[in-house]
Amino acid sequence: MIVVMKSGAAPEQIQKAKDTMIELGYQPHPIEGVLRTIIGAVGDERGKPEDVEALSILEGVEKVIPILPAYKLASREFSPEDTKVTVGDVVVGNNKVPVIAGPCSVESEEQVMEIARAVKEAGASMFRGGAYKPRSSPYTFQGMGIEGLKILAMAREETGLPIGTEILDPHDLDAVVEYADVLQIGARNSQNYALLKQVGQSGMPVLLKRGMSTTIKEFLMCAEYILAEGNENVMLCERGIRTFETATRNTFDLNAIPVLKERTHLPIIADPSHGTGYWQYVTPMALASIAAGADGIIIEVHNNPEVAVSDGGQSLKPHKFKMLMEKAAPVAKAVGREI
Amino acid sequence: MIVVMKSGAAPEQIQKAKDTMIELGYQPHPIEGVLRTIIGAVGDERGKPEDVEALSILEGVEKVIPILPAYKLASREFSPEDTKVTVGDVVVGNNKVPVIAGPCSVESEEQVMEIARAVKEAGASMFRGGAYKPRSSPYTFQGMGIEGLKILAMAREETGLPIGTEILDPHDLDAVVEYADVLQIGARNSQNYALLKQVGQSGMPVLLKRGMSTTIKEFLMCAEYILAEGNENVMLCERGIRTFETATRNTFDLNAIPVLKERTHLPIIADPSHGTGYWQYVTPMALASIAAGADGIIIEVHNNPEVAVSDGGQSLKPHKFKMLMEKAAPVAKAVGREI
Amino acid sequence: MIVVMKSGAAPEQIQKAKDTMIELGYQPHPIEGVLRTIIGAVGDERGKPEDVEALSILEGVEKVIPILPAYKLASREFSPEDTKVTVGDVVVGNNKVPVIAGPCSVESEEQVMEIARAVKEAGASMFRGGAYKPRSSPYTFQGMGIEGLKILAMAREETGLPIGTEILDPHDLDAVVEYADVLQIGARNSQNYALLKQVGQSGMPVLLKRGMSTTIKEFLMCAEYILAEGNENVMLCERGIRTFETATRNTFDLNAIPVLKERTHLPIIADPSHGTGYWQYVTPMALASIAAGADGIIIEVHNNPEVAVSDGGQSLKPHKFKMLMEKAAPVAKAVGREI
Amino acid sequence: MIVVMKSGAAPEQIQKAKDTMIELGYQPHPIEGVLRTIIGAVGDERGKPEDVEALSILEGVEKVIPILPAYKLASREFSPEDTKVTVGDVVVGNNKVPVIAGPCSVESEEQVMEIARAVKEAGASMFRGGAYKPRSSPYTFQGMGIEGLKILAMAREETGLPIGTEILDPHDLDAVVEYADVLQIGARNSQNYALLKQVGQSGMPVLLKRGMSTTIKEFLMCAEYILAEGNENVMLCERGIRTFETATRNTFDLNAIPVLKERTHLPIIADPSHGTGYWQYVTPMALASIAAGADGIIIEVHNNPEVAVSDGGQSLKPHKFKMLMEKAAPVAKAVGREI
Repeated sequence: MIVVMKSGAAPEQIQKAKDTMIELGYQPHPIEGVLRTIIGAVGDERGKPEDVEALSILEGVEKVIPILPAYKLASREFSPEDTKVTVGDVVVGNNKVPVIAGPCSVESEEQVMEIARAVKEAGASMFRGGAYKPRSSPYTFQGMGIEGLKILAMAREETGLPIGTEILDPHDLDAVVEYADVLQIGARNSQNYALLKQVGQSGMPVLLKRGMSTTIKEFLMCAEYILAEGNENVMLCERGIRTFETATRNTFDLNAIPVLKERTHLPIIADPSHGTGYWQYVTPMALASIAAGADGIIIEVHNNPEVAVSDGGQSLKPHKFKMLMEKAAPVAKAVGREI
Repeated sequence: MIVVMKSGAAPEQIQKAKDTMIELGYQPHPIEGVLRTIIGAVGDERGKPEDVEALSILEGVEKVIPILPAYKLASREFSPEDTKVTVGDVVVGNNKVPVIAGPCSVESEEQVMEIARAVKEAGASMFRGGAYKPRSSPYTFQGMGIEGLKILAMAREETGLPIGTEILDPHDLDAVVEYADVLQIGARNSQNYALLKQVGQSGMPVLLKRGMSTTIKEFLMCAEYILAEGNENVMLCERGIRTFETATRNTFDLNAIPVLKERTHLPIIADPSHGTGYWQYVTPMALASIAAGADGIIIEVHNNPEVAVSDGGQSLKPHKFKMLMEKAAPVAKAVGREI
Repeated sequence: MIVVMKSGAAPEQIQKAKDTMIELGYQPHPIEGVLRTIIGAVGDERGKPEDVEALSILEGVEKVIPILPAYKLASREFSPEDTKVTVGDVVVGNNKVPVIAGPCSVESEEQVMEIARAVKEAGASMFRGGAYKPRSSPYTFQGMGIEGLKILAMAREETGLPIGTEILDPHDLDAVVEYADVLQIGARNSQNYALLKQVGQSGMPVLLKRGMSTTIKEFLMCAEYILAEGNENVMLCERGIRTFETATRNTFDLNAIPVLKERTHLPIIADPSHGTGYWQYVTPMALASIAAGADGIIIEVHNNPEVAVSDGGQSLKPHKFKMLMEKAAPVAKAVGREI
Repeated sequence: MIVVMKSGAAPEQIQKAKDTMIELGYQPHPIEGVLRTIIGAVGDERGKPEDVEALSILEGVEKVIPILPAYKLASREFSPEDTKVTVGDVVVGNNKVPVIAGPCSVESEEQVMEIARAVKEAGASMFRGGAYKPRSSPYTFQGMGIEGLKILAMAREETGLPIGTEILDPHDLDAVVEYADVLQIGARNSQNYALLKQVGQSGMPVLLKRGMSTTIKEFLMCAEYILAEGNENVMLCERGIRTFETATRNTFDLNAIPVLKERTHLPIIADPSHGTGYWQYVTPMALASIAAGADGIIIEVHNNPEVAVSDGGQSLKPHKFKMLMEKAAPVAKAVGREI
């Protein structure tokens, strides 16, 4: 990292900064500039934000600039090869771009079965559905809970599709692990570190959604929490960030795909349903995601969005999902992949 | 709520929208406009975002505009009188503006005692310190846990100041409730609904921080989660939102104070330490918070910020905190309050 | 528009609101709700934000909600057919997706000629280069001015490619109109209404860039300024918005493409070079733009980015641009278009 | 500035970076770190972003980190003493906090005179009113133009208050200079560099508003454009930035006050009327501005906001403005200043 001294910093202040570096285990390399002195600190600062802070508050110090990212296990530097995450018989991070589809919430056996059959037939690789729902209002449907998990398991039984579902509360971990193939961490819990550690310890494949105000750097730090528990089965999911634009529910940040591809070895899933929030934008943005290099896409599908208990407006009907799949195939092929 | 039909919507589509409203329990009042029809839906839509969605995805519907806010118990309309939250012998929401002070993290008995004595002497009303810490890196200090709670209790013993501390994991609830006087929900957990419900059930006073990308409306919905469990002891805390500006760590949104005063009866605490992220901006923004109408302020104080294990750069040293208190008194008086 | 009265508004206040509506030329339709009265105002509020405001500040009024967008000529409702903009022999808004390429700044005849030949050979349809540059620092190169325009004209002469260049100052309008085929309005001037009116009056094709903090609604209002002068040759250009994310220079908002396609008849150009700010992200995001439905893309190309006087880091070298063109063709085909 | 080489950069790449630095006039100081080499470049990089870019795109370079801010004349380092700007007989940047007040738009002689007398009586130090208006819609009132300027001059004649008004179009410069005492640059033109240069050349006092998506660093670069023309009479005006929050029209960024106080010697004016967009939040945020250290405040006042042609909803009526002045006096006194 680099310590920038204030213009006119006293020699003792510079000395104090150097001494502190040495105490913290770094080797100081001062450079006297035209207007101020800077001091390079040679050492491995990864995972030590407290060292940055300890130096930044010394007297005479203007700022401290970290050079290395704070994440390590998640970095491509640490692990140059693409990681592949296996879920049932589906491999994510391969040439094939899996499509995860299903309703926002599990509402009934009938609903789940109908949608599961439809998305399977249209070519989906995995099924998703929420049994525990993070709702912005305490008065709305909070999910079917364990009954919902059982219905999801029935859908897997019938279609053979692996099942992904969200986990909200550490108390539900055992139940979710018993029934699901992928644990999903939602945007609102992306910095719920207690939960991240627990899904890390579970060893299960995790679909980690980016938080609404999470930078890409921080997103990789969230993944690091899971990786640090020895669980390498992490898929990153771009699902939109919060900006001033209100024409879409979120600003689906497709740029995150090439940026993440460069910085990390983990596979990237794109979620245009939450990313845009309106069903009519889902198909073009799904195609764009594949063109940008996503390793998978996740799409909300509902047989009857008008009566869906959550996120109906961003769900595709099965026949529109089928059309999406038909359009996605040539785009995937155009970028050298397949659906 | 109001349903706006698309220009050229068919009569059957308009009929369908009206029928759906009636099914959902609303009375439809159509108005034929110059370019399109709108339909007012008379009824109480609070806490029913699913109704908004059910209507918004009907064919021929352009959009649905809710009229009432989704929160109810938190609204000033529901409860016009200011709520006062009592913590030990401190009343928040009164003419007196309490100052909560203390270190970001509990690091040792010695550190806590020294700071607690100093802030007590300078006139603080409550003491704060983190025993469980949400850190962006899994490799950094995560808090002293139950040992930290015990140290906080010792500080209360000696100074008489009530104690506030953050709760991260539902598993720690019993321990935190045993030792603390106020449960703090941090910005990263502001939409961790599982946790909100549990602190609601505890009945304890709660200091609820605004999330980094939480609108004021959503913030009140987070409070509603706690209120809906029958716990009225909720203090709202503005601590900065995430914007494009990087000169401050967050953009401390002081505007939230008059906006919240208008919309809710709950007391508002301002946190200029997290809000700005730099100790040199804390005092002016603390004074501004009081001038804007905050019911309390919360300030990070550390006896030795250079070696603080977290957030050192935004902590005031005790003598600077004392100066802040001296400057705060006349500002409070200027707006008809006292410190 | 809809006027929402406060809960408990007095009958005289409601009457005043109705009277004011009538004065302003609207027909009031009150609906008495459970908690408050709302009044629908039937009339054409487009282009009359002052009516919204006049009503919103009446006593007893909580808020006013406009139903119609403030733009008219730009709306698809007004003009359902896609507008085609013709520049030289290039038609924008057709099945063919034109590629506009060239350096950020005109630096010399040699530089321009070399790049122009290269992009022509690789298949570009138009050439771009800045003769007047909006630079964030007053101390940096501000463009070659009229000499730069002449060099651009020479490039057109040799390659046959139409020329696009930015206009910053109304004083330069005559010169730019004399040499260029397309006038470009940059992000920083997207709400410089004096300039918008003048390019509108020129009748020339305009490439209007979205401002860094311009919503899609406001972007269409900027276009409306040009259209209102009788100039229909407007191309909208998405080039990234400002958000909290710093991994990219801007957050290239690809979602704007399907949103604009729905709301307006004007063609949409995508600018992944400014949108992302880093050359290595340009190609994936260019492909994504085409997949999302862009009517054209604009790409920065420089023969020697290391010595470019502006925006070098986001420029592609000619051979990388050629590779982009080769990758773009099958993606365009996959979505039923061609390059 | 500091050049960070990629991990594993080849020795020739490091050599090339050093050579390039020398060519650009910097002295290279390489430091070999644990994972990568960094090279300090000793020299004065202020005002040379092109050097940063030239280095950042060399092969093997990961990123370049500037150490010095890009502005020079605006920096407190360059000019440690507070600058005082004199407008008529008002000095801005002194212990006294001047209040600038008046309507958004000049609408008639009668309106202006009535408001001017009222704000003068309440204690305002300057009068403001728009003769040229930047309106988001081309169909709304665009200002009275030169007639408006004449009315403003009459208000000065009668009340003795200096006059501030916005300039939008370089064509109007002569007229505005003839009638006004302060030239105002609005948020939408804050990066209209052609205009900034011209107001710089005029030598007149300038009130420069921060753009909606302008960082504090960029804001100071905008000021630098005016200062670089030899005009030191620049007042910076915080008027709100654009964020995701919609409860206020903008997010009035009060934190900018202490940040700017630290970085620049120029006086800072706070505009809570545009900053919040709602009259009921103006008074608390005006008081907060003074408490935070603003050198002046600017307030919209209208005698009849219901019929104001622009920004009525954020205007105070004269009697409310008078109350604001009465409340402001003790707050100013509490922070050691006076109104």
